[in-house]
Amino acid sequence: MEEQLKNLASLLEKEIQALDLPKSPENLYNPLRYFLDFGGKRIRPILTVLGAEIFGKTYDDVLHAALAIEYFHNFSLIHDDIMDEAPLRRAKQTVHEKWNANVAILSGDVLLIKAYQELCKQEAKHIPDLISVFNKTAIEVCEGQQMDMDFEQRNTISISEYIEMIRLKTSVLLGCALEFAAIISDIDLNQRQAIYNFGQYIGIAFQIQDDFLDLYADADKFGKQIGGDIISNKKTIIVLKAFELATPLQKEFLLNLQQITNAEEKVKQTLSIFAEIGVKDEVVALRNHYIELGLNELHSLKSESTNKKKLISLVEYLKTRES
Amino acid sequence: MEEQLKNLASLLEKEIQALDLPKSPENLYNPLRYFLDFGGKRIRPILTVLGAEIFGKTYDDVLHAALAIEYFHNFSLIHDDIMDEAPLRRAKQTVHEKWNANVAILSGDVLLIKAYQELCKQEAKHIPDLISVFNKTAIEVCEGQQMDMDFEQRNTISISEYIEMIRLKTSVLLGCALEFAAIISDIDLNQRQAIYNFGQYIGIAFQIQDDFLDLYADADKFGKQIGGDIISNKKTIIVLKAFELATPLQKEFLLNLQQITNAEEKVKQTLSIFAEIGVKDEVVALRNHYIELGLNELHSLKSESTNKKKLISLVEYLKTRES
Repeated sequence: MEEQLKNLASLLEKEIQALDLPKSPENLYNPLRYFLDFGGKRIRPILTVLGAEIFGKTYDDVLHAALAIEYFHNFSLIHDDIMDEAPLRRAKQTVHEKWNANVAILSGDVLLIKAYQELCKQEAKHIPDLISVFNKTAIEVCEGQQMDMDFEQRNTISISEYIEMIRLKTSVLLGCALEFAAIISDIDLNQRQAIYNFGQYIGIAFQIQDDFLDLYADADKFGKQIGGDIISNKKTIIVLKAFELATPLQKEFLLNLQQITNAEEKVKQTLSIFAEIGVKDEVVALRNHYIELGLNELHSLKSESTNKKKLISLVEYLKTRES
Repeated sequence: MEEQLKNLASLLEKEIQALDLPKSPENLYNPLRYFLDFGGKRIRPILTVLGAEIFGKTYDDVLHAALAIEYFHNFSLIHDDIMDEAPLRRAKQTVHEKWNANVAILSGDVLLIKAYQELCKQEAKHIPDLISVFNKTAIEVCEGQQMDMDFEQRNTISISEYIEMIRLKTSVLLGCALEFAAIISDIDLNQRQAIYNFGQYIGIAFQIQDDFLDLYADADKFGKQIGGDIISNKKTIIVLKAFELATPLQKEFLLNLQQITNAEEKVKQTLSIFAEIGVKDEVVALRNHYIELGLNELHSLKSESTNKKKLISLVEYLKTRES
């Protein structure tokens, strides 16, 4: 990530570390402190701050709205980890693993409410709009998570269904992060919609890149096992794309691949058949399509182009990131 | 319950039934519809409406705030039922039993957000105050639930710790329901505090009455097994009071009672030793103490005494209710 964005991330990190949580009940607040200290890219609150700069506002003007987005994101991770039975996140034990599911449910609940509390620290005149956009987004994120779980039980999912799922589960929150900046900057509804759309498109591209890196990242830079999604037969965009493009024979081969128990062999054969089908380029093209849609929205915004530079460099980072 | 209160409850019931939930994802919204249709006394939203009448406002003025309280209450029940591993509520399967814990977590989350969405339907000028009081209350309810779970792991709990736990878990929400009415009526902070306090004291009395009825209800009218809490060794106020008042010998007898496996025998012997100790009258006195504190707050409100009549009759109902 570019230096400027890294600096912003560490500023936000300090704010998150400074969040004053009560000492008691310990089983409610210790897990929150533990989880928030995992760190992360803090992409979402960074978006709110960069959005503010687009409209001539500052870090301080949007800080609480930015933190609200990050707390909400962490709430959703804590609850999703229970539902996905994930033992680890960022190489650390998840909350329900380190404590138990009850602790993870309740401390997640509190973090969701903390997000609203953070939003209420913005100026009163902006609160109704902020909360209303936030409510809509939060419900969509839950719908996306439910769709994701439903998809696990289904054999066939279309690309458009998948895109709709990641739009809800991931992308609307990036849109919301940026729309918050527009609301606080008293920007008209058209421009609010445009920057929201930018975030949403970039969010879809971000998730496609995530799916892409699972198989095509540089093993030295990725920091996780290559092909983890393939090994667990997860229906990510690259798999769906492969099935969409495959001939009937290739489809049969792909289905047989799912039964292979030797992980290394499975990943190797998957890479080989995906190359034959031409999946990689198609997925890159799909990602770039959403980046293009996003940039069009960004360019439509009435703001000095110098103010847009950091957001554009964030988009560049998204395209070139390797982990 | 008095006729007027019953009518109010069925009006609110219709509003809850009319809540427009999307059809999809089915696994997210069907559980919500299922749970909301359980019905109930709807005491909390009734409090908001009666609070409004105190300050010269109407049902319509506070409807959405009242519904927000009820949705929040239902959210907390859905999540608490997972944590308590409760198979039944109102003689119906709980959400995590009928579906699974994941469905109960996520549909609970959505209901919490729906509560905020409902609040946002009130006039914009009241929203910051409403949300801010709601946030504080919601966090306290979670803290109360955590304390309740922590108490299960402890051998000794003082009466004051127990009262603090039920204050947080149950009573602050009744205070909040009434404070909402004061906020929407643009009432000064002193009066807001007084009606909040009324709700909180009545809430504590309400929970004490709940604990009391478990053992002392009329079996024909109670609708549940008499002594359920005793059979499961739950440390309710009557048990804590018994231990507080017991002689060393009686304490030993009480501890031995907890080992009895024959439910009928256990309840019978508990009733007998409690009578010897004089628990019943003491618990009634404690309940009446909180009712008294509540009524003092109510009487301090600057409002025509006729406007307070329904709230007073609600308090009367609380004292005489048998289920």
